Amino acid sequence: MSKEYVLAGDVGGTNLRIAAVDAGGSIVHQESVETPQTRIASDIVDAIIRVALSCVANCGMDGRPRAFGLAMATLVNSREGKSLSSPNLPELNGLSVADAISDQVGIKVFLENDATAAAIGENWLGSSKGVANSVFVTLGTGIGGGLILNGRVFRGTDGTAGEIGHICIEPEGQACGCGSRGCVEQYASATAIVRIAHELAEVSDSSLLAGRVDFSSKDVYDAARLGDAVAIETFRRMGRYLGTALAGLVDVLNPELILIGGGPAKAWDLFIDSLKAEIADRAFGPPAKTVRLVRASLGDSAGILGAARVAFDAEGTQ
Amino acid sequence: MSKEYVLAGDVGGTNLRIAAVDAGGSIVHQESVETPQTRIASDIVDAIIRVALSCVANCGMDGRPRAFGLAMATLVNSREGKSLSSPNLPELNGLSVADAISDQVGIKVFLENDATAAAIGENWLGSSKGVANSVFVTLGTGIGGGLILNGRVFRGTDGTAGEIGHICIEPEGQACGCGSRGCVEQYASATAIVRIAHELAEVSDSSLLAGRVDFSSKDVYDAARLGDAVAIETFRRMGRYLGTALAGLVDVLNPELILIGGGPAKAWDLFIDSLKAEIADRAFGPPAKTVRLVRASLGDSAGILGAARVAFDAEGTQ
Repeated sequence: MSKEYVLAGDVGGTNLRIAAVDAGGSIVHQESVETPQTRIASDIVDAIIRVALSCVANCGMDGRPRAFGLAMATLVNSREGKSLSSPNLPELNGLSVADAISDQVGIKVFLENDATAAAIGENWLGSSKGVANSVFVTLGTGIGGGLILNGRVFRGTDGTAGEIGHICIEPEGQACGCGSRGCVEQYASATAIVRIAHELAEVSDSSLLAGRVDFSSKDVYDAARLGDAVAIETFRRMGRYLGTALAGLVDVLNPELILIGGGPAKAWDLFIDSLKAEIADRAFGPPAKTVRLVRASLGDSAGILGAARVAFDAEGTQ
Repeated sequence: MSKEYVLAGDVGGTNLRIAAVDAGGSIVHQESVETPQTRIASDIVDAIIRVALSCVANCGMDGRPRAFGLAMATLVNSREGKSLSSPNLPELNGLSVADAISDQVGIKVFLENDATAAAIGENWLGSSKGVANSVFVTLGTGIGGGLILNGRVFRGTDGTAGEIGHICIEPEGQACGCGSRGCVEQYASATAIVRIAHELAEVSDSSLLAGRVDFSSKDVYDAARLGDAVAIETFRRMGRYLGTALAGLVDVLNPELILIGGGPAKAWDLFIDSLKAEIADRAFGPPAKTVRLVRASLGDSAGILGAARVAFDAEGTQ
């Protein structure tokens, strides 16, 4: 096919996906491998280059991609194309990832934090399409975020803006991987759901989760669906904690929309009431009344599609 | 003088000031009265109109002002020119203040929250001049804020954005006038400084503040300057609390600059070290390294000058 297209990638701690995406946002072709579990940065960079070149060769599109947008699960300096800091991909810290890949693939590479990329994707084709001011929240092992302000992605001074998972909601609370304590990520991520359920199950013999040493947030979800009181209370608390952080953002940013995505968002009806109640209790009336809370709609593809949008927008501007 | 000028006002719970301001940001003429202490909204509106007309008559400028920018100590819907909610000026809640004044004065009126106006003023002529991304914090009876993002004031969906004083830093903490608990305003405003000093002085016989029933944040400041340990510790704690909230904004907004103004900012060297330490401890390394903390430079005139800038910018656009 002879259409303009870009490469778009999403590099997480577990999987590395790269796709060819056309200007309408259709994923024409996609390839995926496991992210190399290595201490050597060049192994990851080489894997990205290999999959990218394979993707170009196999996507069935004529010509070269216009640019390559790459979403990464790291703090990103998007201006300099550098990965700055990541618990999941520490070997990339400080590396000029964009240049390293660009030199080999011969295509301009634009780096973006994965949650910011997902916010861009949702704003292009998903739940926040046409909305000028929105906050995207992604729940997973941690909590990520991305901001669309005045109709454009907001990256801040270095491109690291949007890290809403590290808003402090308990000053002397749980230690966080970021070095702080009491970050909302420690109270409302998939990891936090498991911890809270463990704490509650310890004092409840009747819970389906009682006495189980090893369970996942999916197990807590399944137990809640079966009516387990501990599991239900876990999601209620998780909603309250997340609501505390989001209430602050409602007052500070007065967004029209807050989108929530990621695995635990599937438990929407288990946490959304307590989350909304917390926002209503804490935020000012007018912005609390304005904001709508909705589920993100693009699922796993939000990051790839956002990275594609970044590539289309950035190409030719630099 | 024959120059273009605007009217600019700053309406607080105590004083009402209106000035004629030229395009260079010079205050050509200024008048001030006490804000009517009344339950009747029209008394305040009438006072604004009276001072505004007097200001036009006495400012010595030829012709009519181009527009009238009005900064108010209330939550403002700047799009609709409405005052939404205020502990200081409750009688104005829901009133279309801009229209009411505009009808009488015959000049377009543009309403702005006072802290947001101050942020605009500082960005025009003060500490954040030329800076694309900054957070303005004003410490007083409460804590207000204003955001400059991507080189423009950020007002959010309704114009209420920037209310950083109500970021929660202690979920079960002090009750706040906004209806929530544990807002940073309850831990780092002038009011909070007095409360913290009272709590500490109660258990310290040697403090200059011990046994005193009634003192102000200025008294705490004076005691700290005399080396009083309780007063010094009060400002150290206030800095830590404010730092907890600002660390979240550093992660979320990645600003280049945070400006701090208002009365308690005079105690800068008493709180800035603990504030910076808290940001360093809590925020991500890269944005924490980027952000600079500075004192606001326009003092009491920031709001008036920002309101003037709003009037110059808005005139002709609506």
